Amino acid sequence: MNIKVVTQILEWNEDCSNNIKEILKRKNVYLINVMGSPGTGKTSLIIELIKKLKDKYNIAVIEGDIAGQIDAVKIDALGIAVVQLNTKGACHIEAMSIKNVIEYFDLDEIDIVFIENIGNLVCPAEFELGEDLKIAILSTTEGDDKVEKYPLLFSKADSLIINKYDMKEYFNFDDKRVEENTKLINPAIDIFRISTRTDEGVISLVNYIDEKLKILNK
Amino acid sequence: MNIKVVTQILEWNEDCSNNIKEILKRKNVYLINVMGSPGTGKTSLIIELIKKLKDKYNIAVIEGDIAGQIDAVKIDALGIAVVQLNTKGACHIEAMSIKNVIEYFDLDEIDIVFIENIGNLVCPAEFELGEDLKIAILSTTEGDDKVEKYPLLFSKADSLIINKYDMKEYFNFDDKRVEENTKLINPAIDIFRISTRTDEGVISLVNYIDEKLKILNK
Repeated sequence: MNIKVVTQILEWNEDCSNNIKEILKRKNVYLINVMGSPGTGKTSLIIELIKKLKDKYNIAVIEGDIAGQIDAVKIDALGIAVVQLNTKGACHIEAMSIKNVIEYFDLDEIDIVFIENIGNLVCPAEFELGEDLKIAILSTTEGDDKVEKYPLLFSKADSLIINKYDMKEYFNFDDKRVEENTKLINPAIDIFRISTRTDEGVISLVNYIDEKLKILNK
Repeated sequence: MNIKVVTQILEWNEDCSNNIKEILKRKNVYLINVMGSPGTGKTSLIIELIKKLKDKYNIAVIEGDIAGQIDAVKIDALGIAVVQLNTKGACHIEAMSIKNVIEYFDLDEIDIVFIENIGNLVCPAEFELGEDLKIAILSTTEGDDKVEKYPLLFSKADSLIINKYDMKEYFNFDDKRVEENTKLINPAIDIFRISTRTDEGVISLVNYIDEKLKILNK
């Protein structure tokens, strides 16, 4: 008797995620998964990083959205290869979708692929996408209690971007509280305070990604 | 042969939602489900409504959170009956949970129950909770493209609250765009522009809820 037992969708997702890792390692492509609430500034962050990294690296973007292609149009306007991934109602992206989408890119020519995940502080963190770097983004406008309320993403991220940092005072945002609560569940996380609007702090994040790619001999 | 066919979880949820409706109708209790992104201001909205409605109505609150009880503590400090519903990772509240929770309240003594749903612009909208009123809340800090990107909640809500309206200029938030896109998919929706911080517009929402309750002969 040989019965294959599959534990829900997550196991299947993990196989698929590992497969993406193998493909991208072979092609020397670095995959970055950007996750956060609706309106936290994921697209603006990716756009600022593209502007500062595109002279050195070839970049592609996978734009995840429930519906529409508003952000993909913005990325396309920068002359960057982009695929719009519409989830038709689903609250997260699964690895199978990423595996399908990367076939649209010429991976021999690409160094970095950004995934802009669905705006959601809960579900996307549950699904590995074969990424090399998980970026969590949280804005000062959302309040400083979000790590305590939605711990999973912050416990799994490699780096936390505190965005809209220039607006911190208006929203009584205590970034020390966020830092302490994040370090409690994820001591190794790297934290950056930035504003994509004023450009404050963005360069330190650019250097951080640049360092990660140097390790890959890019 | 008599085989019961259940179509996934949603049908079961609907039975349960209808059951809640019957119970609350019998008890003359009005149930309001507040949904929106993390940090959009759901708790602040409920607190402002409580302050302005509590002299006239007996109010109770169900605080939905993935983890913790930060908001329940705030509601409790107002002397309002509150139950903390922790979903332990789930991205939405299901009707069965509400049915269990309302047993903790003395429904003969209560006029209004607020549900603060999980901070999520996607999943909560899929689950009917037996509510009389669905309130969607969107803040100007989140950007004016959210109706196009996350249409389901906005298509199902009875009312849309545009919050942090005092910060509109800082975030180049075009509320006409939001209104037009919402009305396209939900012509009957009632839209309110408010700021829970400055109190702007809150009274019109209070009067709106007051009118809804008058119809119930409260």
